[in-house]
Amino acid sequence: MSAQRPGPSTAPSADPALAPVAPVLAAVREQAPLVHCLTATVSMAIVADGLLAAGARPMMTETAAEAPVVTTLADALSINLGTLSTDAMDGIPATVEVAVRDGRPWVLDPTAIGIAPVRTPLARQLVESRPTVVRGNASELLALAGTGPGGRGADSTDTADAAADAAAQVARRTGGAVAVSGAVDLVLDARRQARVDRGSELLPRVTGTGCLLGALTAACTAVHPDPFEAALAATVWLDLAGEAAAARATGPGSFRMHLLDALDAVGR
Amino acid sequence: MSAQRPGPSTAPSADPALAPVAPVLAAVREQAPLVHCLTATVSMAIVADGLLAAGARPMMTETAAEAPVVTTLADALSINLGTLSTDAMDGIPATVEVAVRDGRPWVLDPTAIGIAPVRTPLARQLVESRPTVVRGNASELLALAGTGPGGRGADSTDTADAAADAAAQVARRTGGAVAVSGAVDLVLDARRQARVDRGSELLPRVTGTGCLLGALTAACTAVHPDPFEAALAATVWLDLAGEAAAARATGPGSFRMHLLDALDAVGR
Amino acid sequence: MSAQRPGPSTAPSADPALAPVAPVLAAVREQAPLVHCLTATVSMAIVADGLLAAGARPMMTETAAEAPVVTTLADALSINLGTLSTDAMDGIPATVEVAVRDGRPWVLDPTAIGIAPVRTPLARQLVESRPTVVRGNASELLALAGTGPGGRGADSTDTADAAADAAAQVARRTGGAVAVSGAVDLVLDARRQARVDRGSELLPRVTGTGCLLGALTAACTAVHPDPFEAALAATVWLDLAGEAAAARATGPGSFRMHLLDALDAVGR
Repeated sequence: MSAQRPGPSTAPSADPALAPVAPVLAAVREQAPLVHCLTATVSMAIVADGLLAAGARPMMTETAAEAPVVTTLADALSINLGTLSTDAMDGIPATVEVAVRDGRPWVLDPTAIGIAPVRTPLARQLVESRPTVVRGNASELLALAGTGPGGRGADSTDTADAAADAAAQVARRTGGAVAVSGAVDLVLDARRQARVDRGSELLPRVTGTGCLLGALTAACTAVHPDPFEAALAATVWLDLAGEAAAARATGPGSFRMHLLDALDAVGR
Repeated sequence: MSAQRPGPSTAPSADPALAPVAPVLAAVREQAPLVHCLTATVSMAIVADGLLAAGARPMMTETAAEAPVVTTLADALSINLGTLSTDAMDGIPATVEVAVRDGRPWVLDPTAIGIAPVRTPLARQLVESRPTVVRGNASELLALAGTGPGGRGADSTDTADAAADAAAQVARRTGGAVAVSGAVDLVLDARRQARVDRGSELLPRVTGTGCLLGALTAACTAVHPDPFEAALAATVWLDLAGEAAAARATGPGSFRMHLLDALDAVGR
Repeated sequence: MSAQRPGPSTAPSADPALAPVAPVLAAVREQAPLVHCLTATVSMAIVADGLLAAGARPMMTETAAEAPVVTTLADALSINLGTLSTDAMDGIPATVEVAVRDGRPWVLDPTAIGIAPVRTPLARQLVESRPTVVRGNASELLALAGTGPGGRGADSTDTADAAADAAAQVARRTGGAVAVSGAVDLVLDARRQARVDRGSELLPRVTGTGCLLGALTAACTAVHPDPFEAALAATVWLDLAGEAAAARATGPGSFRMHLLDALDAVGR
């Protein structure tokens, strides 16, 4: 399965990449799932605004005192190791436990693992709780599978294809889907694999677009029972929004604004 | 008292809703009050940028080690239970105590109370310190008064009118004003009540606009001695800015940008 | 040395203030330095987005458990006392120690020191570790040198020129450069002094532009060995971007967006 960029004459609504995932987008917009996000402090606003633009609803409590309780209200959970505050460090394990107990879908985003001494073992431990979807860049997937040193910060020094084996190995362990973000994105589970050659070079020029993809993936898992299709829908959604935004942007600042507008507009 | 949407031919500067509150807006712009905000991490930037756009000045320290001391510099205090970090949990009670001791106006925004086990009793306890204004959505006011279960996350599942009795009950306890945000906003104190049927459906599509309203209310209480009029001014200010932004926006991302521009422009 | 505003007919690329610092901007864009930032929570997003727009790469872990380890990956470190969470309070000293040990350039931004009881002594203690550049407003520099009470919040109640002696005193202690931001900016070290009369009145109307200047300064120190020239380059970069943004903006919201676009565009 492969999504290629259409010719310039194709209307956005007729984009061939959109058709297979359009029902997932429509379900998010109709059901407005409540997504509990424990995410990097730096990306909280774009994650929340991106979820709202997509039609979902964010919730962001992260302390051990409150996060496990309020996650019982959520339709899905998104765990991003981002800046990993002490509050998040303490709150994440217990919150995941509640989501697993209640059978809620959840997404793990092992941001910036590698040499970081707390998040790296934490991410590997969370894989044992079998996240519905794992989303990361290639370096993070390689580090998660134990076959690479990780990237520098939130960057990836590897391509998504280079992490295909590591991603497949993680998917075998979780029984769910894995999405590897990059210039070409890779989404896979035990049986299927899709390459998505869409998006914009401006996406990594805005902080938190990867974190947003993780949360958007959680929103899609809340409304669609197939983790692979949910992860693919989120990836295509953000990529198409990125293309629409890039067509209007005059730089990374305006791209960020248009991206949020486009998340709302894609496929309508 | 009731503010209705004017016809499309009315110039913004002549908006009839603006006249009664224009002196409060002018005073904020002239006095540039320093507003100490302990607010949700996710909304810090829009709160700070919104205050700056309105002509006020934000300050955001929240630890117990520093917040009570630096709040002595502030002209007003805004307490929002938002993401409620451990730092904020620890810092809020002592900071409120200093504001009360010094006779500074302060606003309580009981964000997302209901089932959350720390913030819900904390909000009720803070009401005993008699906030100048309580600002929340209907579900939060119902939960604060003990007559409703709260919403899901920062959403309200009730209309402002449905919370009128709860809001009046809270106002009797505090002796101040209460503002209930919704499609129609309600502002009241022991003697007066105003319905504000203005604003934009895009306001709840941007994270932190409610938090911003709480902080803007604090800015207004810093320059105007009547809590009811200050709360009403802030509500009208944000609603009119929201309408002006909606007229220019092509989605929630551009709406957020235009909202900040409009907070600066309304009534000038 | 002094940079004056050129006439309106001058093309941005021919701006005379740009020529001396253009090689530094080019080096940031080419080398994409990884800048580890421990910064105010409220300004994290604009700092990260600003670094990305400028061509650098941000990293934002701040706990004592992880920050000292991951800073070994960074090309420069930016320490901003901003909201100073407990995590940052704990993480900053050990992280600075690693940067000093490894000979990495680092920037100290003593935000809002004055009466704040933790950050004020911490800032003075960090000066002893000889930051490559200290960047602050006039009130902060006066408080750092022990000759002024500090400002109110992140504001300065003094002009940069009024802090010239204090800045020179700090520079003598660190052996590095000091940048004092204001309507006119001052950059100096033990031997040189530059006044930069550029920028826009809208810069202080957006939260975190000062924090961004500190981080941008760190990015410049990562690619240029002379702290004075690196600090001057960052100051001119932000000021020229501010002028370009102001020419397009219709208020502080749109200014923020155009500022990020302009950081990407200046001098290209």
